[in-house]
Amino acid sequence: MKGTMPRAEKILSRINELASISEAPKGITRRYGTAAAVEAGEKVQEWMRAAGLQVRVDAIGNIRGIWKAESAGAGRLVIASHIDTVMDAGRWDGPLGVVMGLDLLEHIIGSGGRLPFDIELIAFCDEEGVRFHTTYLGSKVVAGRFERDMLDRKDAEGVSLREAIGMIGGKAEELEEDAIPSEQWLGYFEIHIEQGPVLYEKKAPVALVKGIAGQVRAEVVFSGMAGHAGTVPMEMRNDALCGAAEFILAAEELAGRAGSGLVATVGKLQIANAASNVIPGEVVCSVDIRSADEGVLSQGHLQLRALCESIGGKRGLAVQWKVVQASSPVACDARMNELLGKSIRGAGYEMVELVSGAGHDAVPISAVSPVCMMFVRCYEGISHHPQEHVETEDLAAAIVVADEFIHQLSEIWKYPL
Amino acid sequence: MKGTMPRAEKILSRINELASISEAPKGITRRYGTAAAVEAGEKVQEWMRAAGLQVRVDAIGNIRGIWKAESAGAGRLVIASHIDTVMDAGRWDGPLGVVMGLDLLEHIIGSGGRLPFDIELIAFCDEEGVRFHTTYLGSKVVAGRFERDMLDRKDAEGVSLREAIGMIGGKAEELEEDAIPSEQWLGYFEIHIEQGPVLYEKKAPVALVKGIAGQVRAEVVFSGMAGHAGTVPMEMRNDALCGAAEFILAAEELAGRAGSGLVATVGKLQIANAASNVIPGEVVCSVDIRSADEGVLSQGHLQLRALCESIGGKRGLAVQWKVVQASSPVACDARMNELLGKSIRGAGYEMVELVSGAGHDAVPISAVSPVCMMFVRCYEGISHHPQEHVETEDLAAAIVVADEFIHQLSEIWKYPL
Repeated sequence: MKGTMPRAEKILSRINELASISEAPKGITRRYGTAAAVEAGEKVQEWMRAAGLQVRVDAIGNIRGIWKAESAGAGRLVIASHIDTVMDAGRWDGPLGVVMGLDLLEHIIGSGGRLPFDIELIAFCDEEGVRFHTTYLGSKVVAGRFERDMLDRKDAEGVSLREAIGMIGGKAEELEEDAIPSEQWLGYFEIHIEQGPVLYEKKAPVALVKGIAGQVRAEVVFSGMAGHAGTVPMEMRNDALCGAAEFILAAEELAGRAGSGLVATVGKLQIANAASNVIPGEVVCSVDIRSADEGVLSQGHLQLRALCESIGGKRGLAVQWKVVQASSPVACDARMNELLGKSIRGAGYEMVELVSGAGHDAVPISAVSPVCMMFVRCYEGISHHPQEHVETEDLAAAIVVADEFIHQLSEIWKYPL
Repeated sequence: MKGTMPRAEKILSRINELASISEAPKGITRRYGTAAAVEAGEKVQEWMRAAGLQVRVDAIGNIRGIWKAESAGAGRLVIASHIDTVMDAGRWDGPLGVVMGLDLLEHIIGSGGRLPFDIELIAFCDEEGVRFHTTYLGSKVVAGRFERDMLDRKDAEGVSLREAIGMIGGKAEELEEDAIPSEQWLGYFEIHIEQGPVLYEKKAPVALVKGIAGQVRAEVVFSGMAGHAGTVPMEMRNDALCGAAEFILAAEELAGRAGSGLVATVGKLQIANAASNVIPGEVVCSVDIRSADEGVLSQGHLQLRALCESIGGKRGLAVQWKVVQASSPVACDARMNELLGKSIRGAGYEMVELVSGAGHDAVPISAVSPVCMMFVRCYEGISHHPQEHVETEDLAAAIVVADEFIHQLSEIWKYPL
């Protein structure tokens, strides 16, 4: 690990350089199509060219650099992440995967090596989707999964995505041409900060991502009977908040059972006409359920809904359950994971396996390619916040693992598959 | 009861007459000091004079009518309630006690009777306290418990209570002179709608009020750690909403135990920076605890606070508990209650004993006199709402009981006490 510290420091310096590029005078904000996003892309192109990659900007604005295999007609490994950010972001969410991919390629090229497959390093232009309330615009183009009706979406100023693409020199009409043909995909590798506290708590630098959770988000309404807090005896009440409280604890208990494979969160709750001396008559709350396993997710969803209805029935409350959003889980590739696990153990680190509760560019790519992700520890699990932080020692550890992982891939992908 | 139906219908017609007097073009709103409140007071004076009472308006604006005893120097029974209202009120809360008191006196006078004590019928000018965010302004003057610093309170338009008293012809400097001297008090009798569902559920027309609940109102803050709903495992969470939910159910369970003598209500709850995909980091909620027994109330308060702290300790949440308001319970007079109970049973009705969870003018009066209250059933327990409703048959039943109660009092208060 000590040997990779100089590379880790160079990664840190590039992360800081990107962090200085922002729409806002204070903090880091780079939404799709803004001058700051374009400037960050130019910086990445400059680094890619200096490393010796063939560089281009595709029709939506992804920055793409290729290092060709020793022989023509080889398959392609894509190493990628995004360089757009949320509002007032941290510096690591996204850029880490691009800058570490660049370091990996510099190391390969610097060692005089050619691999038996092409490597394409991509800096996706829009993963967070802040400006147009979308998801994965950049990686959907690469996966050939771009939805054309997205082009008519407008930002807060009334600028459509189609116009925004044009303004940065992109070509909305040619998006389909930038998909990587399905026969060329060997695999996809994304390095990202964890955005959660598991590695921090476990004191481990990196983790293997088993999969990316699917999600069901529902809005739940409990309707009882409002009343005077002083004059209605306890046994005559139909208190909507007590029903919601029972549901909140039932969701926590169900997801908290050992091995449940679920997380469940009630993040919003509103009492209609709330007053301290009025028994709540109606409560609306959200529930967010996630799992890496499709069956576990749909069963968990059904169980929570049934619990909710049984609580309502018992308490004389009417219950409405409305699904607001749903997405399927993504499983990372078993073969790639096996090699990544071997690389982690080989480097002497504890093998931590995680499910990503947050979404990543690997989600749309999984429709066309095996995907694999490595998480790097972030301080206290803090993310989407200026305090987002990664220790340089963890970068050095991640480099050791990633170098070995690429080596392992070059062993199995020696010949056309 | 059939014999009292014509009196009940006259009561209803007067209730409707008062209900037509309002500040607002629609609904019933009569706040202290408004033209509508003054007009309602004039109507009551007119009725009192027609009945043969000595009538005057006191320094704060209470309407006071006296029927003198057969001999001079007798003690005084006060029969009273209020004629101010909340915003968009029902027609029964307050006026019922005044109009029924008037009917009682008309009946006594019409029967040619003189009693061994004076009866003073009072229509209090401000019980709801909507305009100046106060309580019991009218009855506090009669009890000699008016707090002078209230005079500087201002309404939403910046008018002080002192100014408002002047505007209706009152005299802020003479409020103390309108207290009834303590040696003259024999007792206080207030008839009021229940404002709760107990009589409605029990199918009984009237109830004896054992006492008026004391109240503790606290603001509770649970502070945990906000986090991403997808990336923080269940066992690593410090979810402030789950803590609050446990507290809500603990309060419900404690107050709901048979014979607890408590009611407890969480009516307000707010999550800081709430979002469906964010684990709640901070929750602020209210808790309202009431009991007719001082010891039960203070013990309930301590128990709930301890429960709250134990929930916080178990879940790694910081807990703050701030008492926002506290008032002591009032016990109704045992001797008067005995006679009221006898009158209820004598009239053939089920003897329902209730604790009033809402406050009434009897609270300040209890500092200087034995107090006694009778509740009349209201439809579904609905109050402070245009749908507030009392059946005419229940008025007729209440008249039978009240007549007998006055008769019982005239038996025990025959001679100077």
